[in-house]
Amino acid sequence: MAPTLTVLNATAAGGRRARLVLPHQTVETPVFMPVGTQGTVKAVPQGMLESLGAQIILGNTYHLYLRPGHELIRRMGGLHRFVSWPRALLTDSGGFQVYSLSTLRKVTEDGVRFRSHLDGSSHFFTPEHSIDVQIALGADVIMAFDECTEYPASRARAEESLRLTMAWAERSLAYFHAHYPEVPWFDAQTRCMQCFAVIQGGMYADLRRQCAERLVEMDFDGYAIGGLSVGEPRELTFEIISEVLPLLPKDKPRYVMGVGYPDEIEQYARMGVDMMDCVLPTRAARHALLFTSEGRLNIKNKQFAEDQNPPDPACSCPTCSRYSRAYLRHLVQAGEPLAATLNSIHNLAFYLGIMQRVRESLEAEN
Amino acid sequence: MAPTLTVLNATAAGGRRARLVLPHQTVETPVFMPVGTQGTVKAVPQGMLESLGAQIILGNTYHLYLRPGHELIRRMGGLHRFVSWPRALLTDSGGFQVYSLSTLRKVTEDGVRFRSHLDGSSHFFTPEHSIDVQIALGADVIMAFDECTEYPASRARAEESLRLTMAWAERSLAYFHAHYPEVPWFDAQTRCMQCFAVIQGGMYADLRRQCAERLVEMDFDGYAIGGLSVGEPRELTFEIISEVLPLLPKDKPRYVMGVGYPDEIEQYARMGVDMMDCVLPTRAARHALLFTSEGRLNIKNKQFAEDQNPPDPACSCPTCSRYSRAYLRHLVQAGEPLAATLNSIHNLAFYLGIMQRVRESLEAEN
Repeated sequence: MAPTLTVLNATAAGGRRARLVLPHQTVETPVFMPVGTQGTVKAVPQGMLESLGAQIILGNTYHLYLRPGHELIRRMGGLHRFVSWPRALLTDSGGFQVYSLSTLRKVTEDGVRFRSHLDGSSHFFTPEHSIDVQIALGADVIMAFDECTEYPASRARAEESLRLTMAWAERSLAYFHAHYPEVPWFDAQTRCMQCFAVIQGGMYADLRRQCAERLVEMDFDGYAIGGLSVGEPRELTFEIISEVLPLLPKDKPRYVMGVGYPDEIEQYARMGVDMMDCVLPTRAARHALLFTSEGRLNIKNKQFAEDQNPPDPACSCPTCSRYSRAYLRHLVQAGEPLAATLNSIHNLAFYLGIMQRVRESLEAEN
Repeated sequence: MAPTLTVLNATAAGGRRARLVLPHQTVETPVFMPVGTQGTVKAVPQGMLESLGAQIILGNTYHLYLRPGHELIRRMGGLHRFVSWPRALLTDSGGFQVYSLSTLRKVTEDGVRFRSHLDGSSHFFTPEHSIDVQIALGADVIMAFDECTEYPASRARAEESLRLTMAWAERSLAYFHAHYPEVPWFDAQTRCMQCFAVIQGGMYADLRRQCAERLVEMDFDGYAIGGLSVGEPRELTFEIISEVLPLLPKDKPRYVMGVGYPDEIEQYARMGVDMMDCVLPTRAARHALLFTSEGRLNIKNKQFAEDQNPPDPACSCPTCSRYSRAYLRHLVQAGEPLAATLNSIHNLAFYLGIMQRVRESLEAEN
């Protein structure tokens, strides 16, 4: 298959402006990907995401597997069609939510047995099953099944976890190669689902290196750095990303999972990260926290009760173009659902706007 | 002032197609008015209401008085500006919510003392105070302070309640005449806030008649039939509306408060009611009940789990144009906030669509 990533410009600092051709969307990178956990970016309609310029959104395999079920989504023609999202989609492997949400998790060589956080029912995920579920969902990009190493973790624990992640990556890729034509929208001529690997290794630089090298040998379509944003200090996140990026092939997309704050996503993009996702803009929005060009605003604070300024005077999103801080504060105080919608629209616009500016800057720089 | 209502066509059955010029919007009637209790039609952004063709929405005086407070809204330039709604607004008098929501309600000749349902604080509403609050909110149409008669009510109780409503209407009107220029957007040349009276009288036709005649003598800008949808059978609602409508001046708008189901709003519009409001389309939407051309759908039912049809195949609203029943059912099952938004958009489109068709029909009929 033709390479799907074209680097348009690279900077001395390692940053790159690139273009990633995915089956449902040509994605301009670096890109921020809003998270649509259960097949919806919480409180934001799909048409609004399109207006805001979202090129690719995430779905969570663990959540969609449990509800409504991947077989149902397969019968509905895949996740794009089920949720009516025509642009690109990425699903994670389920590994992170199995680690963070499920109960009674039991990891064996073969896979993970866990109980659903919804109803306590018992489930078993193997690499093969994770890929099968993800093929049913039919995102543009799917992830190899990994074991997320907790933080802090002893070296012995990180090594054991890493060993599983590498073995599972190999099995994931083999299953993917054998089954990707089963994706609901398969088109042998022009469109091919992509499978990325997840680099683990905890906070041990040499383990990260070992993992990256081994996974690169396996020749995935792209590489993600996982196991970050699990409670470690930010300097450590930066250090791990710095260690790993130079080990990754220049012609494949690089994805850092689950980050971050606005300044972080800009920083990592300038270092050469192509893709990032985070629940922060929408989760913070639901807790009345707005990211703005003037810093963070806790919009429920009394100081905004009569503030007729837009949430962010430098922003031209649909929320900032129409509504005042005073009104948003009222909506939050009154427990109105419109608060989550309007706050989420702004925070997503802010994140997507940062990436837009970073792309312009990376395109112009040497 | 020039008459604000122009009847464009009247039918033998009493129905009329008219045009009501209000300060912020020329309203084509019969009109359905979505309810924006706390300064927001729950879960639906203002821009979407405009797209759906909403010409006028309601605000609830009781709620807005308690939170964020009418003086705050006055300082913010009135409710239109505070919530960023450029079209027409109507506020109720607060009487209905004092009756239905507050605790320890004590009615005297002068007014009503009640405790807030939010924090138990004590408040006193008089006709003068209700009008003052409504002038601060600054809707296009405000309502005289009334006492809502409960159902069932003895004749003695209905008579006493009616006596208060009539006395309070007179005081409301006097206060309105003395103070309407205090509305935040006052413009003596072209724009004048309107004050409607509320006809009470319980389910006693002769009391309703007595009330209507007395209020018409007072010469309000319009007349509302209140105290309906309080638990009475639908035949009785119909009977009261039928009794009262012929008593009302033909050159003034007629408003039936708090109704109703889709077939009801059509029925009453064809009888000559110009304005109606109801929380039903949005409240039902939040409980997963959709009104469609094929009847009511409880979209959370299992039968819709794999139904790829739009919620209403005959509807072209943003929800029906993009999403399937299966997806809406999933959103409801997953407790996603987008469910309330998409369901509300459809139900409002359905209600507004009924009125659009009734207007076209009334324009063409003899």
